[in-house]
Amino acid sequence: MKGEIIAIGDELTSGRIVNSTSYFAASHLYGAGHEISAMATIGDEPDMIGRALKRSIERSDFVVVTGGLGPTRDDMTTEAAASALDLPTILYPEIFDKIKQSRSFKEMPSMEKLAWLPSGAEILKPGEKIAGYLLVYQEKPIFFLPGVPHQMRELMLDRVIPRLAGWSGSNISRVRQKVFKVFGLPEPLIQEMLSSLEKNNQELRIGYYPNAAEVHVSLTVRGETREEAVKCFEQGEAAIRDILGCCIFDEDGRVLEAIVGDILKEKGLMLALAESCTGGLLSHHITLIAGSSDYFLGGVVAYSNTLKVQLLHVDEKILQEFGAVSRETAIEMALGTRKITGAGLVLSITGIAGPGGGTDEKPVGTVCFALADAQKTLSFQYHFTGKRNTVQTKAAMTGLDLLRRHLSGLDFLDNGW
Amino acid sequence: MKGEIIAIGDELTSGRIVNSTSYFAASHLYGAGHEISAMATIGDEPDMIGRALKRSIERSDFVVVTGGLGPTRDDMTTEAAASALDLPTILYPEIFDKIKQSRSFKEMPSMEKLAWLPSGAEILKPGEKIAGYLLVYQEKPIFFLPGVPHQMRELMLDRVIPRLAGWSGSNISRVRQKVFKVFGLPEPLIQEMLSSLEKNNQELRIGYYPNAAEVHVSLTVRGETREEAVKCFEQGEAAIRDILGCCIFDEDGRVLEAIVGDILKEKGLMLALAESCTGGLLSHHITLIAGSSDYFLGGVVAYSNTLKVQLLHVDEKILQEFGAVSRETAIEMALGTRKITGAGLVLSITGIAGPGGGTDEKPVGTVCFALADAQKTLSFQYHFTGKRNTVQTKAAMTGLDLLRRHLSGLDFLDNGW
Repeated sequence: MKGEIIAIGDELTSGRIVNSTSYFAASHLYGAGHEISAMATIGDEPDMIGRALKRSIERSDFVVVTGGLGPTRDDMTTEAAASALDLPTILYPEIFDKIKQSRSFKEMPSMEKLAWLPSGAEILKPGEKIAGYLLVYQEKPIFFLPGVPHQMRELMLDRVIPRLAGWSGSNISRVRQKVFKVFGLPEPLIQEMLSSLEKNNQELRIGYYPNAAEVHVSLTVRGETREEAVKCFEQGEAAIRDILGCCIFDEDGRVLEAIVGDILKEKGLMLALAESCTGGLLSHHITLIAGSSDYFLGGVVAYSNTLKVQLLHVDEKILQEFGAVSRETAIEMALGTRKITGAGLVLSITGIAGPGGGTDEKPVGTVCFALADAQKTLSFQYHFTGKRNTVQTKAAMTGLDLLRRHLSGLDFLDNGW
Repeated sequence: MKGEIIAIGDELTSGRIVNSTSYFAASHLYGAGHEISAMATIGDEPDMIGRALKRSIERSDFVVVTGGLGPTRDDMTTEAAASALDLPTILYPEIFDKIKQSRSFKEMPSMEKLAWLPSGAEILKPGEKIAGYLLVYQEKPIFFLPGVPHQMRELMLDRVIPRLAGWSGSNISRVRQKVFKVFGLPEPLIQEMLSSLEKNNQELRIGYYPNAAEVHVSLTVRGETREEAVKCFEQGEAAIRDILGCCIFDEDGRVLEAIVGDILKEKGLMLALAESCTGGLLSHHITLIAGSSDYFLGGVVAYSNTLKVQLLHVDEKILQEFGAVSRETAIEMALGTRKITGAGLVLSITGIAGPGGGTDEKPVGTVCFALADAQKTLSFQYHFTGKRNTVQTKAAMTGLDLLRRHLSGLDFLDNGW
């Protein structure tokens, strides 16, 4: 079904809080096979609320309205909806009885307004202390949910999604969706690589979203029948896997840090890092995962050459001959780190994040890596484009991806981007 | 001025990513004294985009449109806007020349579309690799910005806010604005501390924007005359400084990392770090600043106890007696780091980021710090609330703030938040 989401509240339009409820609603509705064509965020103005509601009802199959159901003066959703849809509000005695029993009622008699709902409203969780109702208008379901995030999420999962699934006309079985997370290719190149798929199949839709150094590629298929959707989706999936190969690191909503962590744990390997230009960023990413102490010892942020020599025992002659940013120094850093930490696997990173420090031979964005375990030592030199922060992020995440590829026996990337 | 924000992209309506750009735009526009009456989020559908744009222009003084300016097929904002507003698109040769020089153009000739803009569009950052233009329609400014968050933020701060401030009709000389960056106090507490200021003065408006572990407090004043605005603004400034004291770390748009870096450089001190629960996050923040090698040596990510003992020479007896998360261990880490790096100033961090590892005595969120220089060694124990990631961020940034307070001879915070 095609739906719209309307979030209400001055705290949203003034940017005081981020609208996480609409995001939650959209992702779950989309995951359940519905299409969200528009989301609106509106301040506490009854007239704007009413007009937005009418417009949404007109052009979609269902509407979810969040916020403005509370007892204070600026909670105006119910009045605005009743007035816009020309419905009387009536007193729901079962709600009013509950309110009268509550401790807060004496201090705040305006709570009575929670018991007045538009005529025909069906309370979503009767008998529970949670606002929220369903109104069927022109045969379309309009859900009114509280703006408090955990209450809204509860009703969305327990009531809205199940009710919509059972709604007559729902075509849930004819939509399929999946997100592929891709690392190591820039968005324009991925788009170019996949461009023929969409051209050759009208029912298939591909979306691209760059997320830090990754690109998330979504595949959505709508078929005339369930069988058709499944078949077309499977073809699309296979084609994307075939084209992007091992640059796809996830299809199940996991992050790269967790994927690498799981492989390390499975292999019983302890990891240590030596970071120069990334200044601890990769170490931080690894420790974002709870339980990373099972496979991560720590490491050295050898930002200065002094520490490269003093702590990691990098040979000063190599530093002088090849420079701090060289495969040779990266190898020295990795071997030194292995020696002082006793880690089974070590990765080192040394590069020029910029804006200064570049030369003709080694421009800003040049980053060298080395991987060392008990069997072998590998080194890489890549070039990344972008500002300091971008080069640091691309370098740290490439370090993580090198670990993934090394641990899984996959081919390595030829260069940065 | 009264404005509306339109965010475009299937990745938003499908709930794949949270709409942080509209939140950022709303909070900064609000802080600059504008009123945001509605925000819309729309999928990649030209017809819907066009209708939303026309409706927003009709009922407001300015519109900000984000997203859909990229080179791929699903980027349709420019076409949709041109078609809805009945404007021809024309080729901007200065953009096209840039595109032709880019590496990606050969792989992706469709990048040409970035050079076609609605007739009359003014490029916001000419000559730079960032999409975004201003279109004046029916005498109203319509800003088209990229959806990529950091690009959108850059243009919002550097172009949109200043242009709106100077727009005819808004009387810039009667408006004064400033942002105070605050560290170490939670947003609700700051609101409470400043609540009387707004009540006592109708012309004064205060906005609150939590930004990672910081809170940015904006003061906006509108006077009937220029003199009145200046006077009221100065009173507001003085009151805020008086109430928040040295929790205000900046009034000039600088980041905490740069402020600490400048003091270190001025004092000719070299810094080293020992991080456990923050896993390199603070080191990374310090190296975000270009030129940080002037005052930052690097350090050790002593995530495991093994490395605390092996690399930092933490006394095993102290580890056993007081635990890895204790002021005593933090002091050992700091002294050990000073010894092995030779740094003039050292900060150490060890804590429980969670979700596991907490005890009754030391719950999740307990973090210990030590500061050591040639004169003295100080230690601190704080408690932070929030999930793993939040505890890590609060701890790393508190480490940075401890350095600021220590180096400037200011009082230290009593506890976390």
